Amino acid sequence: MNSTRDIDALIDLMAKLPGLGPRSARRAVLHLIRKRALLLSPLADQMQQVAATARECLNCGNVGTADICDICESEKRANGELCVVEDVADLWAMERSGVFKGRYHVLGGTLSALDAIGPQELRIPRLLDRVQSEGVSEVILALNATIDGQTTAHYIADQLEGQVQLTSLAQGVPIGGELDYLDDGTITAAMRARKQL
Amino acid sequence: MNSTRDIDALIDLMAKLPGLGPRSARRAVLHLIRKRALLLSPLADQMQQVAATARECLNCGNVGTADICDICESEKRANGELCVVEDVADLWAMERSGVFKGRYHVLGGTLSALDAIGPQELRIPRLLDRVQSEGVSEVILALNATIDGQTTAHYIADQLEGQVQLTSLAQGVPIGGELDYLDDGTITAAMRARKQL
Ligand SMILES: [Zn+2]
Ligand SMILES: [Zn+2]
Repeated sequence: MNSTRDIDALIDLMAKLPGLGPRSARRAVLHLIRKRALLLSPLADQMQQVAATARECLNCGNVGTADICDICESEKRANGELCVVEDVADLWAMERSGVFKGRYHVLGGTLSALDAIGPQELRIPRLLDRVQSEGVSEVILALNATIDGQTTAHYIADQLEGQVQLTSLAQGVPIGGELDYLDDGTITAAMRARKQL
Repeated sequence: MNSTRDIDALIDLMAKLPGLGPRSARRAVLHLIRKRALLLSPLADQMQQVAATARECLNCGNVGTADICDICESEKRANGELCVVEDVADLWAMERSGVFKGRYHVLGGTLSALDAIGPQELRIPRLLDRVQSEGVSEVILALNATIDGQTTAHYIADQLEGQVQLTSLAQGVPIGGELDYLDDGTITAAMRARKQL
């Protein structure tokens, strides 16, 4: 079936998205073909647009459409608080809660001996620089309550000890839980009850 | 955060895909941004391509890139057997099993009193025409083993009674099961053991 090659190629690409296997990719593509004017064309255009403009902030690792993201650019966010998260999804979760008014630092993962991910593989050197150069008074370690997350938090706390106030999210983050799964209220409570390390 | 408007718009569109909610859409978009050269751009191009070329076969309802699909065009498939399925995903599942060498007819759903879907809302009139005009000797009703699927099969069987040999998939389709979930072997067994109505 030569003339369905384009459709098969689209299914193969869709199946590479997290959470979609071959079967759900086929379902999604059939849905897109049925709604090609209302959904497929706008989606293709929007992907083109994001592919052309999206980039990671050179300062904090957030995604946006400029070399320096809106949060890093905003003077209002320069309140001396720096919230360290594992990835951009966690930053978005924090922003949805609306509780945090400072800036972020996205590590891009956690330290992991098993996967050979050391401080140089994450944005940890850049974090240490920022604490010096941006007049940071408090670093909030908002890492996931997983073993790797907490190992990473302790490593960073060791590096920054004595230079800055160090806090971590406290009550509300369940054991083994991931920030991006929490509701806004839980994140707000955890932020308000953050404790000194 | 004005400059993330494009990214937010992409998330909103992705969340309209079946099986993706807001959270998995955010995850998918972050993944796409990380892999924008390897995945996002090719996916956007492929969607553009499919949006421009995909259409439903005017004869059988299959999707392809021509007004009449490859299966309907192929003389090899004109063996007198016509397999009636609910939707294109079921046709694809049958084709993956490789057991069926005839042509298809995609109804586009099932009869449903609740949703006010009658024969005119499906491709049933076209099916009755095809049985006459294409020299069909056997109609295989490969509908899902659901109440609506079986109601639809009985309706079609009543309409075609006496005009053509009527069969249905037999062993292998579990009660309440849907074709698109079955493995190829099960579909093959069900097709080989099809029984006369
Ligand atoms: Zn930034
Ligand atoms: Zn066709």
